[in-house]
Amino acid sequence: MNPKIEKLVKQFAKLPRVGNRAARRIVLALLQDKTGRIDKLIDALNDARENICPCPNCGILTDRANGACEYCHDAGRANGMLCIVRDMADVWTLEKSGIFNGRYHILGGMLSGVAGVTPDDLNLGNLPARIANEKITEIIFALPNTVEGKTTQQYIISILGDTNIRFTELASGVPLGGDLDYIDDGTLSLAFGGRRAV
Amino acid sequence: MNPKIEKLVKQFAKLPRVGNRAARRIVLALLQDKTGRIDKLIDALNDARENICPCPNCGILTDRANGACEYCHDAGRANGMLCIVRDMADVWTLEKSGIFNGRYHILGGMLSGVAGVTPDDLNLGNLPARIANEKITEIIFALPNTVEGKTTQQYIISILGDTNIRFTELASGVPLGGDLDYIDDGTLSLAFGGRRAV
Repeated sequence: MNPKIEKLVKQFAKLPRVGNRAARRIVLALLQDKTGRIDKLIDALNDARENICPCPNCGILTDRANGACEYCHDAGRANGMLCIVRDMADVWTLEKSGIFNGRYHILGGMLSGVAGVTPDDLNLGNLPARIANEKITEIIFALPNTVEGKTTQQYIISILGDTNIRFTELASGVPLGGDLDYIDDGTLSLAFGGRRAV
Repeated sequence: MNPKIEKLVKQFAKLPRVGNRAARRIVLALLQDKTGRIDKLIDALNDARENICPCPNCGILTDRANGACEYCHDAGRANGMLCIVRDMADVWTLEKSGIFNGRYHILGGMLSGVAGVTPDDLNLGNLPARIANEKITEIIFALPNTVEGKTTQQYIISILGDTNIRFTELASGVPLGGDLDYIDDGTLSLAFGGRRAV
């Protein structure tokens, strides 16, 4: 394979959900296309690289020119409720569902001894100030339901110390449409522990 | 979603084998990465856009600076045999298998009434000259085993007229490891028609 083409294939193959085979197809599609798709892709990449950065307040990816992001700016969103998530993908998932209309705070990772992620690696520096400035009364932890997620949650509660804030987390249990046959023991055990009167 | 991010997601979602969901993951991976992956991708894309073009002789994607491609230049490849393929992906597939060591000719498409592909759209202009200059004695059609593939093959044979060239095509039949239960009727019929003495 031509070295320049190979270099491009390698870059695409490193992207999530793109293997070597798909990367080759993508590169050929771009190089053989006559409608300028490669130009549009390069333009969009350059534009995003130059202008997109994390919101200094909450960590949401936004236009550098805006200062704080559209979520922090939006007066239509409920004040007082802060949803703590791991990354931007979680914000998009929650926004698509339309179930939450408060503010977000992106951590950028989960504490992990194995992966060597320490509190300094997380976006926590301005959290106490945000809670005071934005008069937060409830913090909702929408973190992965894993050991790392729970550890991170406990750590954040511990550093915030004695406050009047209500801390909540997403319910654990059988997903909608979930068949008990296919549910793992851990989830089943959580669902039993959290059983409700009907 | 931020419009600049959305624009980038849209460009990725247009690529083959990348859906909307995968495009979002890719964009986040690029924007949240701290190792400069987006820079390397943009560099590789720019480099390929500026320098890669079809070989004027055979249509293989190559460095503009080289003139004819590495396959046309390579004195180690067998002369006299010309393998006609649809596109660059087919060249890579054949090269990976290592079964062919002659020259290639990429058509860039298949004749198709439905898709409106006419002979003018195919890379056929210099084919007669190549056959004469490169003293081609056998043309191997490695085209898709479809109506369009067969039509294109017949068309090329017809325009080359009365020559001493040997025209061959890939054998049709049951693939290696193929279970008869899973083979379509058309393939089965071709395999029967082409049955061999054992």
